[in-house]
Amino acid sequence: MATEVRHASEDQAELLSDLIAAGLLIESGVPGVYGHGEPFERIRERLERRISGEAQDRGAIRLRFPPVVPTRDVESSGYVGNFPHLVGTIFSFEGSEQDAQTQADRAAAHEDWSEFQSPTEVSLVPAACYPVYPAIAKRGPLDPGGVFVDAGGSWVYRHEPSHDPARRQIFHQHELVRIGEPDVVIDWRAEWSQLGMELLRSFGLDANLDVANDPFFGRRGRLLARSQRAQDLKLELLVQIAGPEPTACASFNHHMDHFGSIWGIELSGGDTAHTACLGFGHERIVLALLRTHGLDPRDWSPEIRSQLWD
Amino acid sequence: MATEVRHASEDQAELLSDLIAAGLLIESGVPGVYGHGEPFERIRERLERRISGEAQDRGAIRLRFPPVVPTRDVESSGYVGNFPHLVGTIFSFEGSEQDAQTQADRAAAHEDWSEFQSPTEVSLVPAACYPVYPAIAKRGPLDPGGVFVDAGGSWVYRHEPSHDPARRQIFHQHELVRIGEPDVVIDWRAEWSQLGMELLRSFGLDANLDVANDPFFGRRGRLLARSQRAQDLKLELLVQIAGPEPTACASFNHHMDHFGSIWGIELSGGDTAHTACLGFGHERIVLALLRTHGLDPRDWSPEIRSQLWD
Repeated sequence: MATEVRHASEDQAELLSDLIAAGLLIESGVPGVYGHGEPFERIRERLERRISGEAQDRGAIRLRFPPVVPTRDVESSGYVGNFPHLVGTIFSFEGSEQDAQTQADRAAAHEDWSEFQSPTEVSLVPAACYPVYPAIAKRGPLDPGGVFVDAGGSWVYRHEPSHDPARRQIFHQHELVRIGEPDVVIDWRAEWSQLGMELLRSFGLDANLDVANDPFFGRRGRLLARSQRAQDLKLELLVQIAGPEPTACASFNHHMDHFGSIWGIELSGGDTAHTACLGFGHERIVLALLRTHGLDPRDWSPEIRSQLWD
Repeated sequence: MATEVRHASEDQAELLSDLIAAGLLIESGVPGVYGHGEPFERIRERLERRISGEAQDRGAIRLRFPPVVPTRDVESSGYVGNFPHLVGTIFSFEGSEQDAQTQADRAAAHEDWSEFQSPTEVSLVPAACYPVYPAIAKRGPLDPGGVFVDAGGSWVYRHEPSHDPARRQIFHQHELVRIGEPDVVIDWRAEWSQLGMELLRSFGLDANLDVANDPFFGRRGRLLARSQRAQDLKLELLVQIAGPEPTACASFNHHMDHFGSIWGIELSGGDTAHTACLGFGHERIVLALLRTHGLDPRDWSPEIRSQLWD
């Protein structure tokens, strides 16, 4: 609760208030947690089907995962070390019937009842590709050429409360994951960073590819970020939503053998598999569309409407 | 972690193992947390579209909510008092850079790092209808006849680890919610309990309606359960999945003015609105289908396949 809530720029605050007034977003009372009205969700679903369709046309298999994941897997991934400030862990009641009563009384009075909560075995999914790696590892060595997984639009949690409508605590990250030989994976990322840019541009968005880094935590994090940039491991597709900075609407990440080693994913010949993933932020892309083409999709051009509305 | 994991009957354990072997479910390592393979998800999506279609034909508006909800709303709803054992609250890191390092080291060694976690403002959605009431309350007094909301297949969390594949910690609950005058709401529930039964029977499932109660906690809970049954406030559609007991695949709940009062939802004349909701458990219905018609949907009868597969 002591976490600082990021302020919105004037432009961002105005966009958020317009989105709520138009029934596109539904406030929850917590910054960065919103419901979707019918038109917002309609565009998002069209977008999801479009991305999954493009992936399926290129040989992806569909797997789907819930928004919680074993905490043990989050620990194994290194995420707790790299992004301690973003992880959400799930706690639950442990105690006597009397404790339950005290907890209930405090909850009813909106007082602190956290002392009766203990960690469960699960955390919120921190990145939608995370459940994919252990699932593929369990299948045994890969066939030559590896595997391409479409994990769909998964809910992902990041503890970063903000009044910027483009920075949510909980949002749909649509992950496509490629696991295979080093050259297969690197070619795939190159192909998809272009495909992704063309896709967003075909929606009338002014999307541009740039080298980026993850928001690693602390002093050690600054070194990690510099090294990630130097190796071109992360690319982002940036679109202007509300100012001043452009917003990353998709990212294309090359992990080398990081996840392959952690999960023991083997190539057909026994070597460790390389991995790459790409994540489209559904809500950010919908915001970019609403900002670029107007808040009422019925007024969009027939070209855009036919792709994402009609 | 001290929570007892429910055992599965022999029949349930065999079903779970068959579902995993067939690629329908993907194990996570935590009981009650599974990914979905392509065929499982395909049936589930068809089911979701069918339920939403039936609701839309009867005037429902579509709203969608994320799997987290303000803890304050869970407190206001009375859920913490009634179901303390099921609530999942979300914690996050609070501390210094040194604390983050200690936390990272412990996490990497799979040791306890919960002392660095503090409660956030959000919890997992305990029932998919919960975010609907405050969202509707914010719109102001209802029009005469009230409102019918389709909240879609939302992810819902219950902390009840079990090896029974029909008892998940995280699953899709498809909620339809009716808010309006007392008679409107009671008629709607009567209509939908029949429609729901006909829908499941049209899928070839032997579904039967029965009076039920919620799994209220503790001694006081037994009284609440008895009173709920005596007033016919909860009906369930039961289908045999894996033995010995039949499984509730949908429930139809009449809340009287409970949520209307809490959230201050007003009828057009100023009285407090009544509410009812119905929740279809997507995964349980898919399990019932797989158990009844076989694990390979390509072998289902053309009649069932045309509704839920082709």
